[in-house]
Amino acid sequence: MDKYAEQTQQEFEGWEDFFHKPVDEKVKYFKRDGRIFDVIYAQQFDRPFLDHLCNLAEMIRHLARTKVGQSKLRHLLPHKRAMLYFVQPSTRTFLSFQNACHILGLTVSEIRGTSTSSEVKGESPEDTIRTFASYVNLIISRHPEAGFAEKTAWVLNQTERPVPVLNGGSGPDQHPTQALLDIYTLEREFRTIGGLDGKKIAMVGDLKRGRTVRSLSYLMKNYKNVELVYVAPQVFKMKDDIKEFLNKHNIPFKETEDFESIMPEVDAIYMTRIQNEYAADPTSEAETFPGFHLKTKHMSMIQTHCAILHPLPRRYEIDVRIDKDPRAAYWRQERCGMWIRAALIAYIFRVDGGITEEFN
Amino acid sequence: MDKYAEQTQQEFEGWEDFFHKPVDEKVKYFKRDGRIFDVIYAQQFDRPFLDHLCNLAEMIRHLARTKVGQSKLRHLLPHKRAMLYFVQPSTRTFLSFQNACHILGLTVSEIRGTSTSSEVKGESPEDTIRTFASYVNLIISRHPEAGFAEKTAWVLNQTERPVPVLNGGSGPDQHPTQALLDIYTLEREFRTIGGLDGKKIAMVGDLKRGRTVRSLSYLMKNYKNVELVYVAPQVFKMKDDIKEFLNKHNIPFKETEDFESIMPEVDAIYMTRIQNEYAADPTSEAETFPGFHLKTKHMSMIQTHCAILHPLPRRYEIDVRIDKDPRAAYWRQERCGMWIRAALIAYIFRVDGGITEEFN
Amino acid sequence: MDKYAEQTQQEFEGWEDFFHKPVDEKVKYFKRDGRIFDVIYAQQFDRPFLDHLCNLAEMIRHLARTKVGQSKLRHLLPHKRAMLYFVQPSTRTFLSFQNACHILGLTVSEIRGTSTSSEVKGESPEDTIRTFASYVNLIISRHPEAGFAEKTAWVLNQTERPVPVLNGGSGPDQHPTQALLDIYTLEREFRTIGGLDGKKIAMVGDLKRGRTVRSLSYLMKNYKNVELVYVAPQVFKMKDDIKEFLNKHNIPFKETEDFESIMPEVDAIYMTRIQNEYAADPTSEAETFPGFHLKTKHMSMIQTHCAILHPLPRRYEIDVRIDKDPRAAYWRQERCGMWIRAALIAYIFRVDGGITEEFN
Repeated sequence: MDKYAEQTQQEFEGWEDFFHKPVDEKVKYFKRDGRIFDVIYAQQFDRPFLDHLCNLAEMIRHLARTKVGQSKLRHLLPHKRAMLYFVQPSTRTFLSFQNACHILGLTVSEIRGTSTSSEVKGESPEDTIRTFASYVNLIISRHPEAGFAEKTAWVLNQTERPVPVLNGGSGPDQHPTQALLDIYTLEREFRTIGGLDGKKIAMVGDLKRGRTVRSLSYLMKNYKNVELVYVAPQVFKMKDDIKEFLNKHNIPFKETEDFESIMPEVDAIYMTRIQNEYAADPTSEAETFPGFHLKTKHMSMIQTHCAILHPLPRRYEIDVRIDKDPRAAYWRQERCGMWIRAALIAYIFRVDGGITEEFN
Repeated sequence: MDKYAEQTQQEFEGWEDFFHKPVDEKVKYFKRDGRIFDVIYAQQFDRPFLDHLCNLAEMIRHLARTKVGQSKLRHLLPHKRAMLYFVQPSTRTFLSFQNACHILGLTVSEIRGTSTSSEVKGESPEDTIRTFASYVNLIISRHPEAGFAEKTAWVLNQTERPVPVLNGGSGPDQHPTQALLDIYTLEREFRTIGGLDGKKIAMVGDLKRGRTVRSLSYLMKNYKNVELVYVAPQVFKMKDDIKEFLNKHNIPFKETEDFESIMPEVDAIYMTRIQNEYAADPTSEAETFPGFHLKTKHMSMIQTHCAILHPLPRRYEIDVRIDKDPRAAYWRQERCGMWIRAALIAYIFRVDGGITEEFN
Repeated sequence: MDKYAEQTQQEFEGWEDFFHKPVDEKVKYFKRDGRIFDVIYAQQFDRPFLDHLCNLAEMIRHLARTKVGQSKLRHLLPHKRAMLYFVQPSTRTFLSFQNACHILGLTVSEIRGTSTSSEVKGESPEDTIRTFASYVNLIISRHPEAGFAEKTAWVLNQTERPVPVLNGGSGPDQHPTQALLDIYTLEREFRTIGGLDGKKIAMVGDLKRGRTVRSLSYLMKNYKNVELVYVAPQVFKMKDDIKEFLNKHNIPFKETEDFESIMPEVDAIYMTRIQNEYAADPTSEAETFPGFHLKTKHMSMIQTHCAILHPLPRRYEIDVRIDKDPRAAYWRQERCGMWIRAALIAYIFRVDGGITEEFN
């Protein structure tokens, strides 16, 4: 019987080995039959996948405009049950995933925070996730610990009952579905001018800790002739690992602290929040960096087609009076999050074919 | 581009102006095509609306008695998604709205308290509500701040994506759907004796801070020959604004501290809780005012058709032994809250016609 | 009118009398037309009921394997609404009940903890439960207070609107649906070797406070020639009440502190957690009792058909490396909890006939 012992032992030693492999080697582990099964890192997405998902999102959005179409969507996955396990506060990721599930007919169980769960009884995170897998067909998790989603997917894939895991944000680094909705929003905002290929995009604010801009930068390798402009105060400059990645993939980029100087030349401005919510005093105005805010006066400096994005929530980075400018894309971007996540869930359960054939 | 800035600027200055307008002027702002769109104040309800909604609630209740009828109801709004945003503790309002949604087939997302949402990241309430509007078709909110629902509805009505807002209670003043269920309950309890018109109603307890008795008093102007009796200790007397309102609309009322003296003459007794839950010691017996409690001995003093109401939760205002008396209407009243809220949601989404035609 | 007063008075005096009656006398009170209506104690279950429910669970599980079957299940109870009222932390019981509801098409409202409910306003637990009954068709509760589910079911049965109450755990003693899933798991693990009759079962760990082993012991009277082995440290020995019960029903049992000595002879090992979560320091290693843990080396000492159960969550009682051994039944056991609870709900609403006829 000790073969079981050794075997499992090896697998748990195996985790450390796996964890430290380069991502490119790890991605295949989260695939089945050549399709993505678990969604863990933005690096899992290639151009065909991104294009497919954006098209799928557009189709779902189109179907959802009619009662008949919505009924079709709702009958795609009524036999599936999802679990939303959100240990960190979240409004947008949580609600967009939950409503994406509702749109496709999935029922949803939720645990928000750990106070109501058995973790208080000293259960390991792996056992907790495995418990969810006993009851549902899909696990969507958000967790403060880096690699949490990765490890739980890795563990589940070795059990009698693997279920797909979607990473709704784990730790400071990975938030792949945010990257998906950013790509979808950019493609959509640029749909009349050739999409994302060939555009120049400014990323503004806390580039050092902002995981959305990091993931988005990675994905740029999938698009042709994109240029990036990093606009950040010295203390929040983009880290070297990303710059090395861009150089390796010949993606031109520049850095500046002079926001206004680059406004006239960019096709999109991706604003981010100064992530000081973990600072002693979250509202500390000492950290607002006004030179990296978008103000009403700037609306006359940017191009007429320039798309303004922000992952939200916003504080003072964008003047609320800008919301009504047609170039303010951040509210549309938020809604794109629901459609692209619905597309992702449809893809994971392989009902994307059922959607596309509606349009043939 | 500054026209956007000015425009929005004006609108935000506009809020203060709007907020201080008399309610009668504001109600039209929450209508579409001559129908109520956002439900913010009890003052939005006129007699035809109240009658229509009470009839609708009866029809929904009737349909819900059979599996076929329930199936019809459930298929009215399966393509709609609702958001329950309850920042204040609530059992009845929350559960009755949630189950009203379930009865009509809507899916529901909920945020209870703010600990799990992005408000911790310093987001403004307006942005939070606008975020909900990105994902759902209906927002039902409860908030400690007066005017919260009003402001959010006002803001949403200026966006690309307005969704109806139902006020589940905001601040000390407005709780319009409670008023609806109170009216529906009274009409129902009196259905064999001509309904609410011409009845004499006692309101007992904390009339000063009790928003339910305040809203109900306002609505009396829609009914013929109603008389009110305010029964409260000196410290909790009904405020002058309401008395002026009653005088203006020639609604006769009297005030007394002698509860037992008016028991024989009234058609309904609306009991309320002494709102001392915000007192230092909520259970402080010093504040119970026993002279304003309903006791078993009183059941022989009131009329045989007298309806006893209470918005609940109850503490000691009504002896539990009275619950079994057929005149104890408060448990039926609680259930009426679910049916009338279902009727309201059906009306808001204009499927009330689909319900009424079932009965033609 | 005082007859109402007296009557209710009597009933509330009646509670104390009722509460102290022997369970065998009380069970009939929770029946309707010869069927179980409220599920309060494990003592309500007899062999025909247990066999019926296990068969029902197998059928539901079988139907759930196909989309057509799942659609049949989902259309059994879409017209019913359930309430999950969980005042104590729980992952497994909560999620398995919730997903059991989803499988059968019920919509679910949930209150977890009391911070969001009106109890803060000083409402009695009886009024709170009665409020739930106003909105839903089924109440599933978990509460730290012994007799909570019993009292609420008893109260509801005297109202205009009784709804069935399922006890998801109340106090230290009763957790009847856990007992159901344990029985179902044992029958299933032994299905190729004649089921539970005639088997020898070891219960290990904290037998003094572990309510699962207590309930399971009670149910053994329904099975033929079962033998029990209680394996516990001196301080956690099984209480005398259970031993007297076993003697009364001629169920042979023995006690030991030498776990390894009885490993070769038992057909099942039911491991339990040392319930020290209420201890000052829940992680206090002083309380782990390593002599009562199952380790990888033990897998060569137990029989090849021996089933290993654990109610979960687990801490260190079972080495994670054992999880992959086919005899490790605890993850299957967890999933059995969802199926047996679905079977129970189907039975309560009398749609079990609709399920069984699928197989005729």
